[in-house]
Amino acid sequence: MSLAPLVIGPAGAAQRRAIAKAITLLESTRADHRAQADQLLTELLPHTGKSFRLGISGVPGVGKSTFIEALGLCLIAQGHRVAVLTIDPSSTVSGGSILGDKTRMEQLSVHPQAYIRPSPSGGTLGGVAEKTREAMLVCEAAGYDVVIIETVGVGQSETAVAGMTDMFVLMQLPNAGDDLQAIKKGVMELADLVVINKADIDADAATRAQAQITSALRLFTQQGRERGGWTPQVVQLSALKQVGVDAFWQAVSKFREVRTSEGRLQQRRQHQALAWMHERIEAGLKQAFRSHPQVRALLPQLTADVEQGRLPASTAARQLLAAWHPNTP
Amino acid sequence: MSLAPLVIGPAGAAQRRAIAKAITLLESTRADHRAQADQLLTELLPHTGKSFRLGISGVPGVGKSTFIEALGLCLIAQGHRVAVLTIDPSSTVSGGSILGDKTRMEQLSVHPQAYIRPSPSGGTLGGVAEKTREAMLVCEAAGYDVVIIETVGVGQSETAVAGMTDMFVLMQLPNAGDDLQAIKKGVMELADLVVINKADIDADAATRAQAQITSALRLFTQQGRERGGWTPQVVQLSALKQVGVDAFWQAVSKFREVRTSEGRLQQRRQHQALAWMHERIEAGLKQAFRSHPQVRALLPQLTADVEQGRLPASTAARQLLAAWHPNTP
Repeated sequence: MSLAPLVIGPAGAAQRRAIAKAITLLESTRADHRAQADQLLTELLPHTGKSFRLGISGVPGVGKSTFIEALGLCLIAQGHRVAVLTIDPSSTVSGGSILGDKTRMEQLSVHPQAYIRPSPSGGTLGGVAEKTREAMLVCEAAGYDVVIIETVGVGQSETAVAGMTDMFVLMQLPNAGDDLQAIKKGVMELADLVVINKADIDADAATRAQAQITSALRLFTQQGRERGGWTPQVVQLSALKQVGVDAFWQAVSKFREVRTSEGRLQQRRQHQALAWMHERIEAGLKQAFRSHPQVRALLPQLTADVEQGRLPASTAARQLLAAWHPNTP
Repeated sequence: MSLAPLVIGPAGAAQRRAIAKAITLLESTRADHRAQADQLLTELLPHTGKSFRLGISGVPGVGKSTFIEALGLCLIAQGHRVAVLTIDPSSTVSGGSILGDKTRMEQLSVHPQAYIRPSPSGGTLGGVAEKTREAMLVCEAAGYDVVIIETVGVGQSETAVAGMTDMFVLMQLPNAGDDLQAIKKGVMELADLVVINKADIDADAATRAQAQITSALRLFTQQGRERGGWTPQVVQLSALKQVGVDAFWQAVSKFREVRTSEGRLQQRRQHQALAWMHERIEAGLKQAFRSHPQVRALLPQLTADVEQGRLPASTAARQLLAAWHPNTP
């Protein structure tokens, strides 16, 4: 009955179907499906954790799909099995992923050693991230040893991806215009590696950008963030011309080696798992609160009272908490 | 019995005592005090909202105290009454405010038209911010028509201060070294006005910093944040030599005029009050969850299970939520 033996089992058509069913199950909102999904994940968990989890972020147009296709085929040629999952914050609004189009990665998407799954749709970013995180575990249990989580540079999705991967890669264009944006949003600081794509179009601009971003990264590192024996690097490449993809993977492998040898990879994953648990608890608390009948009855009036300055905000908060649960402070 | 008539009443020694008592009451953690404080705030609320709420942030050593003393005395000379409240995140850890020393503002602290209160101590930043926000309402009800909330550039306190004031001012030193830090932390983006203090020490450096910060602010503005008819400005001054303080206040008055005439000041306050309400609800939910007997009993084991990879984080979160409240999703 359980999908677990098929997911863990030999690669092939039966496994692919089991993976797809498993992911569909964990994306379901039905309570009985959720219980089954929890059961399945617990069964799969001992078989997870053996992949390298690579996060890739960049604004639309930076060339993520082209790069991931080139990288994925290169890795498969080396004997890896590659899963690509997407977190697209726009899918939380539109109910459908703009990145869902598998034809973006023409060769990779039909390759038997690759598994590509578009962003789950609907719900909050937290919900979408949770489903993606669980889908990652399914892929790992199925033996995909490189899992790539990609996201567009919108909203808080980079933080979500950095929070579920071993290494976070930021893709930039050779014009330095979006550097400040990445710095401002705190995304640059998350990056273990920055890739300047389309370096073939303007070599001078790419070199300038590389120097600028390198010095920005150095500042962050000086400003005290512990990077665990790794100095964030900047590499140039051209995904379209497939130049620099090997060197990129060498940098990734070096990172993995440094982190694994010091036990930091495991530490990072433990921290991520706990942070994820607490994030989900918070989301659950808020949902329970918002759907509580007493809260729903009181909230509109108290909101209006606070807005109109008839009631202090903290008093309204305490009244709502008391209505929800008499024992809250 | 109620303190409200004394707080609202004529300025003088009796009012000062009533303000101090009121703030002590709302800083108390006793439940009966909290109920009295809520009652008092609700009584005072119709008398609040008439001040201008000015947030001032800057790293230690930037000269906040000297500047606030100069500004406060200048405003009092113009007929204003000035309250200065502090949010010091370090007080949440140490249990005492490093900024609590009133001698920092020698003349202002003893002036009958000024009221200075150090940071509340203990508790979370959210708790400290709440107490400060409520103390601000007390000062407003007492007729202080300029309330200055100052904070050091540590942790998330700038966001808290920007979230309770009409205008957020960032103080910088003439060397541009801390610009990137402010940009990275997202503080620069909060600033309605940037002050370069100690401009007398190195006029060239101050002018360079002014140009750099101006262009950084312009980029943020271009990148789409609606600033409500106001372009963030950068001014130079020397608080110690009392040069530029008048011009600073002119810029503040211009900002206030623009915002008030368009009704945006009121909008900002409404948004702030609602955001504050929701922030307090979240904090209350988390506290109720953490102190629940079932959660406290289960949390250590489930945390260990998640850390050791025996249980998926989302499953653990659901189990904890279910233990806490059987009806949560």
